[in-house]
Amino acid sequence: MSRIDGRTPEQLRPVTIERGWSKHAEGSVLISFGDTKVFCTASVTEGVPRWRKGSGEGWVTAEYSMLPRSTNTRGDRESVRGKIGGRTHEISRLIGRSLRAVIDYKALGENTIVLDCDVLQADGGTRTAAVTGAYVALADAVAWAQTKKIVKAGRKPLVGTVAAVSVGIVDGVPLLDLCYEEDVRAETDMNVVCTGDGRFVEVQGTAEAEPFDRKELNALLDLASGGCADLTAIQTQALAGTL
Amino acid sequence: MSRIDGRTPEQLRPVTIERGWSKHAEGSVLISFGDTKVFCTASVTEGVPRWRKGSGEGWVTAEYSMLPRSTNTRGDRESVRGKIGGRTHEISRLIGRSLRAVIDYKALGENTIVLDCDVLQADGGTRTAAVTGAYVALADAVAWAQTKKIVKAGRKPLVGTVAAVSVGIVDGVPLLDLCYEEDVRAETDMNVVCTGDGRFVEVQGTAEAEPFDRKELNALLDLASGGCADLTAIQTQALAGTL
Amino acid sequence: MSRIDGRTPEQLRPVTIERGWSKHAEGSVLISFGDTKVFCTASVTEGVPRWRKGSGEGWVTAEYSMLPRSTNTRGDRESVRGKIGGRTHEISRLIGRSLRAVIDYKALGENTIVLDCDVLQADGGTRTAAVTGAYVALADAVAWAQTKKIVKAGRKPLVGTVAAVSVGIVDGVPLLDLCYEEDVRAETDMNVVCTGDGRFVEVQGTAEAEPFDRKELNALLDLASGGCADLTAIQTQALAGTL
Amino acid sequence: MSRIDGRTPEQLRPVTIERGWSKHAEGSVLISFGDTKVFCTASVTEGVPRWRKGSGEGWVTAEYSMLPRSTNTRGDRESVRGKIGGRTHEISRLIGRSLRAVIDYKALGENTIVLDCDVLQADGGTRTAAVTGAYVALADAVAWAQTKKIVKAGRKPLVGTVAAVSVGIVDGVPLLDLCYEEDVRAETDMNVVCTGDGRFVEVQGTAEAEPFDRKELNALLDLASGGCADLTAIQTQALAGTL
Amino acid sequence: MSRIDGRTPEQLRPVTIERGWSKHAEGSVLISFGDTKVFCTASVTEGVPRWRKGSGEGWVTAEYSMLPRSTNTRGDRESVRGKIGGRTHEISRLIGRSLRAVIDYKALGENTIVLDCDVLQADGGTRTAAVTGAYVALADAVAWAQTKKIVKAGRKPLVGTVAAVSVGIVDGVPLLDLCYEEDVRAETDMNVVCTGDGRFVEVQGTAEAEPFDRKELNALLDLASGGCADLTAIQTQALAGTL
Amino acid sequence: MSRIDGRTPEQLRPVTIERGWSKHAEGSVLISFGDTKVFCTASVTEGVPRWRKGSGEGWVTAEYSMLPRSTNTRGDRESVRGKIGGRTHEISRLIGRSLRAVIDYKALGENTIVLDCDVLQADGGTRTAAVTGAYVALADAVAWAQTKKIVKAGRKPLVGTVAAVSVGIVDGVPLLDLCYEEDVRAETDMNVVCTGDGRFVEVQGTAEAEPFDRKELNALLDLASGGCADLTAIQTQALAGTL
Repeated sequence: MSRIDGRTPEQLRPVTIERGWSKHAEGSVLISFGDTKVFCTASVTEGVPRWRKGSGEGWVTAEYSMLPRSTNTRGDRESVRGKIGGRTHEISRLIGRSLRAVIDYKALGENTIVLDCDVLQADGGTRTAAVTGAYVALADAVAWAQTKKIVKAGRKPLVGTVAAVSVGIVDGVPLLDLCYEEDVRAETDMNVVCTGDGRFVEVQGTAEAEPFDRKELNALLDLASGGCADLTAIQTQALAGTL
Repeated sequence: MSRIDGRTPEQLRPVTIERGWSKHAEGSVLISFGDTKVFCTASVTEGVPRWRKGSGEGWVTAEYSMLPRSTNTRGDRESVRGKIGGRTHEISRLIGRSLRAVIDYKALGENTIVLDCDVLQADGGTRTAAVTGAYVALADAVAWAQTKKIVKAGRKPLVGTVAAVSVGIVDGVPLLDLCYEEDVRAETDMNVVCTGDGRFVEVQGTAEAEPFDRKELNALLDLASGGCADLTAIQTQALAGTL
Repeated sequence: MSRIDGRTPEQLRPVTIERGWSKHAEGSVLISFGDTKVFCTASVTEGVPRWRKGSGEGWVTAEYSMLPRSTNTRGDRESVRGKIGGRTHEISRLIGRSLRAVIDYKALGENTIVLDCDVLQADGGTRTAAVTGAYVALADAVAWAQTKKIVKAGRKPLVGTVAAVSVGIVDGVPLLDLCYEEDVRAETDMNVVCTGDGRFVEVQGTAEAEPFDRKELNALLDLASGGCADLTAIQTQALAGTL
Repeated sequence: MSRIDGRTPEQLRPVTIERGWSKHAEGSVLISFGDTKVFCTASVTEGVPRWRKGSGEGWVTAEYSMLPRSTNTRGDRESVRGKIGGRTHEISRLIGRSLRAVIDYKALGENTIVLDCDVLQADGGTRTAAVTGAYVALADAVAWAQTKKIVKAGRKPLVGTVAAVSVGIVDGVPLLDLCYEEDVRAETDMNVVCTGDGRFVEVQGTAEAEPFDRKELNALLDLASGGCADLTAIQTQALAGTL
Repeated sequence: MSRIDGRTPEQLRPVTIERGWSKHAEGSVLISFGDTKVFCTASVTEGVPRWRKGSGEGWVTAEYSMLPRSTNTRGDRESVRGKIGGRTHEISRLIGRSLRAVIDYKALGENTIVLDCDVLQADGGTRTAAVTGAYVALADAVAWAQTKKIVKAGRKPLVGTVAAVSVGIVDGVPLLDLCYEEDVRAETDMNVVCTGDGRFVEVQGTAEAEPFDRKELNALLDLASGGCADLTAIQTQALAGTL
Repeated sequence: MSRIDGRTPEQLRPVTIERGWSKHAEGSVLISFGDTKVFCTASVTEGVPRWRKGSGEGWVTAEYSMLPRSTNTRGDRESVRGKIGGRTHEISRLIGRSLRAVIDYKALGENTIVLDCDVLQADGGTRTAAVTGAYVALADAVAWAQTKKIVKAGRKPLVGTVAAVSVGIVDGVPLLDLCYEEDVRAETDMNVVCTGDGRFVEVQGTAEAEPFDRKELNALLDLASGGCADLTAIQTQALAGTL
């Protein structure tokens, strides 16, 4: 059985990562997972939020947002509605936690890096593309901060790599990296964030229709681990300039 | 090695469930997991949100909130700040999804049930206590709606049971049902929602410090499955009036 | 003529006061006036709001709120609506003023006590139960602050006691402590806050239907004074541990 | 002992009422109580709020606001802060209740009258000036609605008159109609709303410093009744065009 | 062809400027352009916004608002809606920029002047009346600050005068100072702010129906320049006390 | 004297227009004016806002926004702050008015087109690039609606073309299409929107430092007319597919 777009169950969509997409940001990436396109910028500022002052430690946080017409039907702008929806909050928090998992706050020193992940076009997997792209923007921003001596010489704030992918069960078959059409039909949906050494940072699985059993969960985790490993390789190539 | 409160790693805190705590709500429960106390009410209204009208299907949703002094230090009221925080949104959405997993919308008919979960005292595991207590309030509300013929005769909107528990790794040891002090020290934190037949509705694991490997993940899932089974038994007793 | 619940016109509903209902708050009380149940916590923090800094004086303030399903029909959460309604504001201000009437700011020193009054179940008289219960929570919090030397030795921040009750004219008869059903039918509704020595802190009378004359006003004030005296006795017993 | 501005204790400040101050509003009044100036407009619209539709009854409501520099120090605009303060809410509600006390909803029919009371200059007593001026604007608006046949022929929506005044105890002396300087120094502050026949619509007394006893309360009520009677006479003259 | 109110195309409506309309504000003016009435106050405070501290320079800003019933149909209060509309923002910014054009920040020193322009009655041209009136209030406030030595001796913060007028093309004829009825029918609408020496501070022209050509633009600019010169003369008289 | 980037005073920056940048929107364009990049989408929906229902006429509106790191220093998200700033409102309104100038509402029928203009990278002239790009997106959306028969056969909702450019006086020299660095230094700043036949839709000139005289205004209008003509040619090529 082949998928809507002809992929095998364990195959990622074509992934592209363009670095340096903004002339202003210290790190910036346009990442695509098939038709999903997310623009990720990393902004470095000296200083930390008030509750962290004097700790000698830095901070990394993220904000996720969708452009109103990134989806098939135009959505209201959250700035116009005057409040941020639960889904936006949830994904922003997920991205922030994921990136903080590979940051050494002490090495970063009292500096803050904000990741902005704006979805320009959505076709499923926007949060996982955002995590994967934001990591590359973060790496560029950290390198910039090292060059500018904002991070002290010899210190390495980045202690690993991180990538994310969605998996799900569609018509009983576990699939990697769901596009929107597959996502809508999935009985179970899971987002997994892994480090480059294959360990888990986040595992978020949700039964959309039927609850799932341990065997299905294991199949999904296997798929996701493989997908994250592939994404890690692509990130490495992007940062090496060989993508 | 024993825990702060003398429990074994795979032991729940004392759980109490008091039904009928409100004279107004169609279902209401005061649940405690040790010192964590959550007041759950289920409110039945005829009709559904606009986007669901004419579908013949019902809706179940939830709102979670903490009283300002449910925690050790008083927090600002979200009504005073004028907006709901990301954590509140995230937990409200989790509770709603968990309960919808055991609802047959068709059988419910065009009726809405809103679960309010207000934390009166927090000591870790507020979201899992909320899911577990809300299920009992929901069951009472569904029974009420059946008695009142709001749900048509012979229909069973409730197609299963659902309970939730937290697990985590503290000092390298996987523990069930973390209290606040353990939660703060946990390297990995996971919330798991299971149905009564042992399947998963939600699995949300987060590395707070070090990423976790597959073996640790498996150990946590084992612990959580056992904890949810224990909670299911307690819910059953509570609903049978034998708790 | 007897009342709905068999009381005489000048009789309070059964009043219960449970102290120490929260393990976190410096003072906490679950008070009930019949079926009206309000959870009151008193939170002590060192320091005062900015506008009071350097004055050597403390501050006491209050926030009142109703749980969404504390009433017969579920109300929207003010945190979800994003703003606090006029009634909530008005009652919060009333509670704060009432308690400040028995506080010696100098003796309190630059410390702040916040009273949170959350209505768990409403059946009329929520604001008067809140004032009456909050006073007991405040007394416990002040005693705690004295023990912890947050209040300087020998100082007595609490200079009196305060209690509140509603009165109203129903079918031409002045009644004490209206339950919801009486409140709805009242032609005139009055909330009175008295100190333990029988003086007035607040008198708020409103003609719901017909304006009231001086004679009716006098009858209501007499009833209220008696009711407050009864409540003062109950508060004293609660604080003495003899309730 | 004479007052700051030479008045006797039971004397009102000079009161002026200018009708027809707006060419747009159905009723409009610029009222002054000494240096306190409030601009009151009454806007008639056909139809009622949703919750009242089909009842055959009308509705009257009010909104109070202070211009930012109506006071000695400029205050923030509530529109800029994005929320309405508790005091504003409380006063808007008081004005609305006061006017509704003299309205026959049935006679008004399904029409709505909104009173806007904007304080142009504040010197104490803004809420009482607002009630007193709003009544005159309301009377003009009702007359307009009768002329335009929006109110059915022969119906009299206005069933009485209403006026309000502040009283307070300053240095132990009960005073009528406090200006700002007196208000700040008052030990007790009371706002009283009376109908033209001398009955009470609202009595709101607050101990600002010391609680007050029944004797003081009686003295204040006597003063207020006299003051309201004087204001009723002035309103009558204004409406007769003989002021 | 004569206009609705009998004016010639290049004629202003009757303009009145009453100074000293508030006893609190450092400068205050009630200005009318025909039936348009705007109350302008200038509030002086020592100090500047945070972003300007230490610069040695002052700041001038403005807030514009319409009373709910300043228009023919009552509008919602922006404070009640909880947000400021685009038009209000736009006009507030225009007034601020216009006045800052004649301020020497260095001479003003680290002081702030806030202009509040509240429309009491609207009949077209509210923003131009606001600019013209606010200038007079500003001049009075600057003079006050000089007298009080808040502005250092010998310094002149006010380096020119500023006035504003609307122009438009109605039925093909360029007209000065449109009233509401003309404004609604205008094909092109332009607001022009000039200094007393005839130069432009703001030119804002909008095609409401048909785009306009260069010749029409020139005719409108000629009209506006003449109108502003007339207003400058009236402002000068008002400040000289000879109006 | 040559400009920062070597342009002559009357020269535009390099302009690129890429159509079809979104797979979801009915019209979409990525436009760049030098380093300024704006993503414009046009969303067609059947139906109109409530106030326009039954009129037989359509509606066109626009929303402008800047990504947080589109500028040199990261700005707060308006969705996070909970309100839209004045500048955003002002520009959104300008874009909407500009496009409505070339729309025949009757021909559009009761359909709505929303233009979203999101600035990905800012270097001066974001609002003029937005108008110019949005026109192309609008043209594509109208063509789509004609193809889909949402616009009735034979009807032409688009009655002209529209483009916008900024001009300003820098060091006394009038310059076309200011980049950020020039914009900051400009004494006078003007945004001009023209139709393809050379008439004006909007003229917004502001003296940033010195007021400007009629001669300077004329020079700026000449420059802007030329610049808009050049942009019109580029738009035409883009729509013809020959850019």
